[in-house]
Amino acid sequence: FSSLYSQIELNITQICLAKECSEDEIVEELLRLNEDPKVHGIYLHLPPASLTSRVLNTLKPEKDIDGISDLNMGRLVRGDLSKVFVPPRASAVLDLLEKHEGKTILLVGGEGSFGLTLQCLIEKNGMVALKSNWNSKSLQRQLMEADAVVLLGAEDMDVPPTWFRPGAVVIRCEPTLATGIVEYIMINVVHSYSRWLQEQQYQPWHLRTLKLQPLMPVPSDIEISRAQKPKPVDQLAEQIGLLPEELEAYGRSKAKVQLSLLNRLHAQPDGKYVLVAGITPTPLGEGKSTVTIGLVQALSAHLKLNSFACLRQPSQGPTFGVKGGAAGGGYAQVIPMEEFNLHLTGDIHAITAANNLVAAAIDARILHESTQSDKALFSRLVPSVSGVRKFSPIQISRLRRLGINKTEPASLTPQEVHTFVRLDLDPSKITWQRVVDTNDRFLRKITVGQASTEKGLIRETGFDIAVASEIMAILALADSLEDMKNRLARMVVGTSRSGQPVTAEDLGVSGALAVLMKDAIKPTLMQTLEGTPVFVHAGPFANIAHGNSSVLADKLALKLVGRDGFVVTEAGFGADIGMEKFFNIKCRASGLRPNVVVLVATVRALKMHGGGPNVSAGTPLPKEYIDENVDLVAGGCYSNLRKQIQIAHLFGMPVVVALNVFRTDTQAEIDLVCQIAKECGASDAVPCYHWAQGGRGSIELAQAVNEAANTPSNFQFLYHLEMPIVEKIRVIAQKVYGAEDIELSPEAKAKIDYYNQQGYGSLPICMAKTHLSLSHMPDKKGAPTGFVLPIRDVRASIGAGFIYPLVGTMSTMPGLPTRPCFYDIDLDPVTEEITGLF
Amino acid sequence: FSSLYSQIELNITQICLAKECSEDEIVEELLRLNEDPKVHGIYLHLPPASLTSRVLNTLKPEKDIDGISDLNMGRLVRGDLSKVFVPPRASAVLDLLEKHEGKTILLVGGEGSFGLTLQCLIEKNGMVALKSNWNSKSLQRQLMEADAVVLLGAEDMDVPPTWFRPGAVVIRCEPTLATGIVEYIMINVVHSYSRWLQEQQYQPWHLRTLKLQPLMPVPSDIEISRAQKPKPVDQLAEQIGLLPEELEAYGRSKAKVQLSLLNRLHAQPDGKYVLVAGITPTPLGEGKSTVTIGLVQALSAHLKLNSFACLRQPSQGPTFGVKGGAAGGGYAQVIPMEEFNLHLTGDIHAITAANNLVAAAIDARILHESTQSDKALFSRLVPSVSGVRKFSPIQISRLRRLGINKTEPASLTPQEVHTFVRLDLDPSKITWQRVVDTNDRFLRKITVGQASTEKGLIRETGFDIAVASEIMAILALADSLEDMKNRLARMVVGTSRSGQPVTAEDLGVSGALAVLMKDAIKPTLMQTLEGTPVFVHAGPFANIAHGNSSVLADKLALKLVGRDGFVVTEAGFGADIGMEKFFNIKCRASGLRPNVVVLVATVRALKMHGGGPNVSAGTPLPKEYIDENVDLVAGGCYSNLRKQIQIAHLFGMPVVVALNVFRTDTQAEIDLVCQIAKECGASDAVPCYHWAQGGRGSIELAQAVNEAANTPSNFQFLYHLEMPIVEKIRVIAQKVYGAEDIELSPEAKAKIDYYNQQGYGSLPICMAKTHLSLSHMPDKKGAPTGFVLPIRDVRASIGAGFIYPLVGTMSTMPGLPTRPCFYDIDLDPVTEEITGLF
Repeated sequence: FSSLYSQIELNITQICLAKECSEDEIVEELLRLNEDPKVHGIYLHLPPASLTSRVLNTLKPEKDIDGISDLNMGRLVRGDLSKVFVPPRASAVLDLLEKHEGKTILLVGGEGSFGLTLQCLIEKNGMVALKSNWNSKSLQRQLMEADAVVLLGAEDMDVPPTWFRPGAVVIRCEPTLATGIVEYIMINVVHSYSRWLQEQQYQPWHLRTLKLQPLMPVPSDIEISRAQKPKPVDQLAEQIGLLPEELEAYGRSKAKVQLSLLNRLHAQPDGKYVLVAGITPTPLGEGKSTVTIGLVQALSAHLKLNSFACLRQPSQGPTFGVKGGAAGGGYAQVIPMEEFNLHLTGDIHAITAANNLVAAAIDARILHESTQSDKALFSRLVPSVSGVRKFSPIQISRLRRLGINKTEPASLTPQEVHTFVRLDLDPSKITWQRVVDTNDRFLRKITVGQASTEKGLIRETGFDIAVASEIMAILALADSLEDMKNRLARMVVGTSRSGQPVTAEDLGVSGALAVLMKDAIKPTLMQTLEGTPVFVHAGPFANIAHGNSSVLADKLALKLVGRDGFVVTEAGFGADIGMEKFFNIKCRASGLRPNVVVLVATVRALKMHGGGPNVSAGTPLPKEYIDENVDLVAGGCYSNLRKQIQIAHLFGMPVVVALNVFRTDTQAEIDLVCQIAKECGASDAVPCYHWAQGGRGSIELAQAVNEAANTPSNFQFLYHLEMPIVEKIRVIAQKVYGAEDIELSPEAKAKIDYYNQQGYGSLPICMAKTHLSLSHMPDKKGAPTGFVLPIRDVRASIGAGFIYPLVGTMSTMPGLPTRPCFYDIDLDPVTEEITGLF
Repeated sequence: FSSLYSQIELNITQICLAKECSEDEIVEELLRLNEDPKVHGIYLHLPPASLTSRVLNTLKPEKDIDGISDLNMGRLVRGDLSKVFVPPRASAVLDLLEKHEGKTILLVGGEGSFGLTLQCLIEKNGMVALKSNWNSKSLQRQLMEADAVVLLGAEDMDVPPTWFRPGAVVIRCEPTLATGIVEYIMINVVHSYSRWLQEQQYQPWHLRTLKLQPLMPVPSDIEISRAQKPKPVDQLAEQIGLLPEELEAYGRSKAKVQLSLLNRLHAQPDGKYVLVAGITPTPLGEGKSTVTIGLVQALSAHLKLNSFACLRQPSQGPTFGVKGGAAGGGYAQVIPMEEFNLHLTGDIHAITAANNLVAAAIDARILHESTQSDKALFSRLVPSVSGVRKFSPIQISRLRRLGINKTEPASLTPQEVHTFVRLDLDPSKITWQRVVDTNDRFLRKITVGQASTEKGLIRETGFDIAVASEIMAILALADSLEDMKNRLARMVVGTSRSGQPVTAEDLGVSGALAVLMKDAIKPTLMQTLEGTPVFVHAGPFANIAHGNSSVLADKLALKLVGRDGFVVTEAGFGADIGMEKFFNIKCRASGLRPNVVVLVATVRALKMHGGGPNVSAGTPLPKEYIDENVDLVAGGCYSNLRKQIQIAHLFGMPVVVALNVFRTDTQAEIDLVCQIAKECGASDAVPCYHWAQGGRGSIELAQAVNEAANTPSNFQFLYHLEMPIVEKIRVIAQKVYGAEDIELSPEAKAKIDYYNQQGYGSLPICMAKTHLSLSHMPDKKGAPTGFVLPIRDVRASIGAGFIYPLVGTMSTMPGLPTRPCFYDIDLDPVTEEITGLF
């Protein structure tokens, strides 16, 4: 019946199985078809003996256009017709019984499931079904009384025409496939396809939220996390409209989501895009993550608006050091928090592996170049395989960059061979560091190559914490697998003795890096304490990199929440750093435009900016921070808070101030902050209580955000990329930080000249500045003015795509204190419960 | 009806939901009950309005004792009664209709699904079902003709008794729950429980194997792997009898298996336990992994015997260096091979993180002890939290070990405080190295602590490849989470200035290590090219550690294959190393006893042992290895092969020699090997062709192994643990390697004395010797005699639980060649296909 199908533009494929094919082979074929998203219907034209329970139960009910699976039959019998396929033969009979409503239909014979299905459908269509069988003594009389008769299994039976009531419809229903049935099969294919199409459409999620019953006093984070049982991640995925084939579970509570989703939903409008930033924090942090999580809990679980939080994956190092976990806190957390804080789905481990492969390749290459002639190097780099020498694609890319347009190894001149085989890296100008995801301060500065096998090629270098790797910044900014691969290839690892940049592709390692990172590029789906979805993806340093979660997570989330939904993403540190980079770097890379900025403030940080005493980790808070002090609060509001609101306005963004309320804050203090914030231009300012109450405590914030998102914003970048590097730095220093001017060290000037000369001049700027002050001086609180920002040095992450000027010294490797967190971390080997994580 | 239940010893729990409870709440409750393995039946006593499609479809069909789910109804209607629950009311009716076979039963009314179910069951029970309705004009006549009548929905109807045929059974079927129904519910609970019990029993797997269609010439490993679509891992798991809750998927083709399985199947007898070892290999390797995989493919897919392969996880370093992958080769592979060779489920990354946390803790502790007084250290290590100082459990363990039986911090004397706070590590006696999973030769010897922040505390140390970490050896030997945790705590990281060993627990880090390793302890399930199961777990170095896959993977696999099944596990290097350690170390730790040793040989390696020229990686094979040469083959058989067979016999094990056939081997060479092997005492010797043919090529081997496994073995250890360390070393050197004697360096003697004094004397021995010769001299092939084995040094892995004497220098960090494998490795960003892995 191919021709019929093609007339209505259905594609059909007939799969012929061997006559003696086994049940296994049928099942295998079915499994393949079940998973093929291009197949919307499967019709099994098999002998009845092959239609075993196993075969029928393998067939995916959504594609069972013949309506023969058990589940289809059960649904039909129970009367849930929304997802059912009516068996084509039954549809045909029903059409013949048109206009028989209220009439009596006699079914004769048909003891099998088809008879029952038909009987059930006849009744559902408002007719009266009676049943008889071929041996019934009263068959003749029953036939005469029926308005219509359906004869089932009637091949061998003959009924005298006179037995029927005159004018009665008589239907002989034979089990073989008649041509007339084909159109009903086609109708079912069309049904199947329409249902599939409908599922692709945007719709509010049917999210099963998890109930919270907050305790007072609030227990420890790990206790709260453990007390809530997360939904299986495949259920969560289904509830937010992911297809099973788009999900890769990692255990029961986390899963990677495939990027193919972006293709499937490309026509879907994006949701609203909300950035959570903060005022300049105390060293203790002011709870941007908890606000982010509390906000989506409120939006999703309480206002019933599709909402996603996009968070950064924390480094494992600090989890065992001082900081503890980063999954939020109190009743606004990602769960299970230990999964969030530990290996997660291995992305940081993949980054570590990729980063260190580059490092090993650098030193090994220097060694091999130092001990071999051009000829020996060439014959090893382009080895003869079965007598043939060939360049690999990575090598051909390098030849192109060197201006050698040859593909035949034998045709290179000795000079070209020399140029090709020698990267000639200057050991003193290698910028690539190794990384570990451990707070290991003794690796900050080390000497490598001291074993005799390395022939005296020792050099000084160091390890950074893994999240400081440029590969992490790339992961966060890439918008596709291809983009990531190209960025990895472009990474500059050092300079040759003749001053040329040497890239990962020159080392021949870029393909391997892409392979190591192929799973890391997929965001990880988790959930909040209230069962609402969260993407965890990437976590670049917020000073030497841009400190924002990934472009891809935001893009996937914006499609999943759809038109009326919200994606809440977080920027590291204060708004002067994280938000500025979010706009100028991340939004440039992604092309996305935010709708609202949520600015997180605390009474504690405001008091500090208002002139309160020093706040530091590990020492008790001075009493100014515990007792009411409206003057200090007002001082902080009129300095730092006002300035941070103004920064957001520079970009044309509406600002909602979220006051993260602590137990010691008084009502007068809370009211004051909200009042001054509005006075300073915030669209709204509200207190939030998510830490103690979960989403319920942030409903007011959610409403304010929803309102602000529906006012038009007028987004603009702070600078054009084509401005000179120095000018871009100056604009940020003056407009964002409030500096008088900038001052470049000779080293910084020389680097800028070098970058201009290499063609890197039009990259955006990623300032590496302390987060503890708007200025470069951590102890200057409030909104300092009149200072000159010193630019000590300038570096570049060419793969990630930004220039980063250093203002002061940045540590890229934390240390462990005398008593690290790990002293309290333990595992009960019987219950497998973890204690001591916070 | 609780009392009725308890009479037959069923436990029932009545869950009362609030009257106004939402659909979500019902679904949540059902999901919980679905997952609870102690619940075997769920009866929903809910108002009809609450029995929505969603509720009914949430209910797990296996627990639907009321028979109301769609799937149950569909199965019943279609006639597959094996997994069905007959609705209790229907059972009651059927019982009343006993002895009505062949009789006519009239159903009156009942348009709902219950009527259809009943009608269907009546027919299935050999009665004739007729159907009428309450309005039928001929109802009276039909009633009179029926042998029995079932009145459905009959509450409001009244039928004059005279309408029934005298003696006819009349059943009034009302929808409310009558007490008489309860026993039918109970019967269904019993059915449910029996089915569950039956599933727990041992049974041959219903394994859906994957078809192989081997090509000639054999394509590259990655091409073969990519051409075969693996079964979804949850299907594989179900086929081998794992419960869904025992599985933690990591993507679609790998999953971790929970250790709780060991409890569930503790009564199940173990399968046969087969060790694959090899003769002394050439530097190219002789294919033990491919033999292992080919053997299980043959056993499972061709002989239909439940079989599991247990393999080591390869280090990622060599994958990008020289060696390439380790997933087998040709048509005997684990798929997808790139998943196997890359991050897998993150176990090695977890080991790296744990290992390096210990390293960071060591150096940070030295720094903090060097800069603080006893008092300052004590007040930081035992901080005052809300005015109270308390020791953590890890600290109390340390106090115990120090002989201080106090729990109150204030009660310690200054001397006790000093002893407690100062580990006083001697920087020159730290044995703990850092690790990376990268071939990074420049890290072999390094100086750390050169940043000014580390106050001049520089010291020399180095990095090993991650799999050389003692934590990897522990993972491979631990037999439970608790055992692993205890071993981690016992690890000795160095010596104090007063000569005391310092452990991971002294550093306070052991709980954190257990937390980091909590997922790594679960073996990873994958599959072969033919869809048979494989565990991949642990991969300790085969020289400085014992080179065997994990005890836990073997134990889980032995339970899963059951009585008549096979577990094939692999030992690293030649039988003199891997097999000896398998018996003396791994079998001691596990308590398991093997049934057969498969000894892998190749014509190539035998020729080398028979006097053939040198074989080395990267240079073409000399012609002796390509052309037929029976003399060299015979020489190799009578030396190395015979000796390796004898070594297995030392342990009382039957040996099957597996000749891994290469394309260039001639029939005369093959026949000769098999003949001499049997002459030398092998139970059998067979050629195998798995590389080119998959499991089909190893059927003969599988049969030989099956036969040998059914002959009684007489396993014995080579030495008693209580023998002095020197004697244990001597026994191995003389009996296994064929040495005349051993010779200890002064350093080795001193170490042995120290270990004896510390109470480590009764640990087993893990020799660190070259694998390229039975002796310590890599170029002595065949079966050298008359040599004295020099013991250069002796070290100890106290957590793993063995002493390892060093015979010569062992490199624990490989390097990268001039052109590493990574030059060819690439990823197509569109298809996501990987090329260049092999």
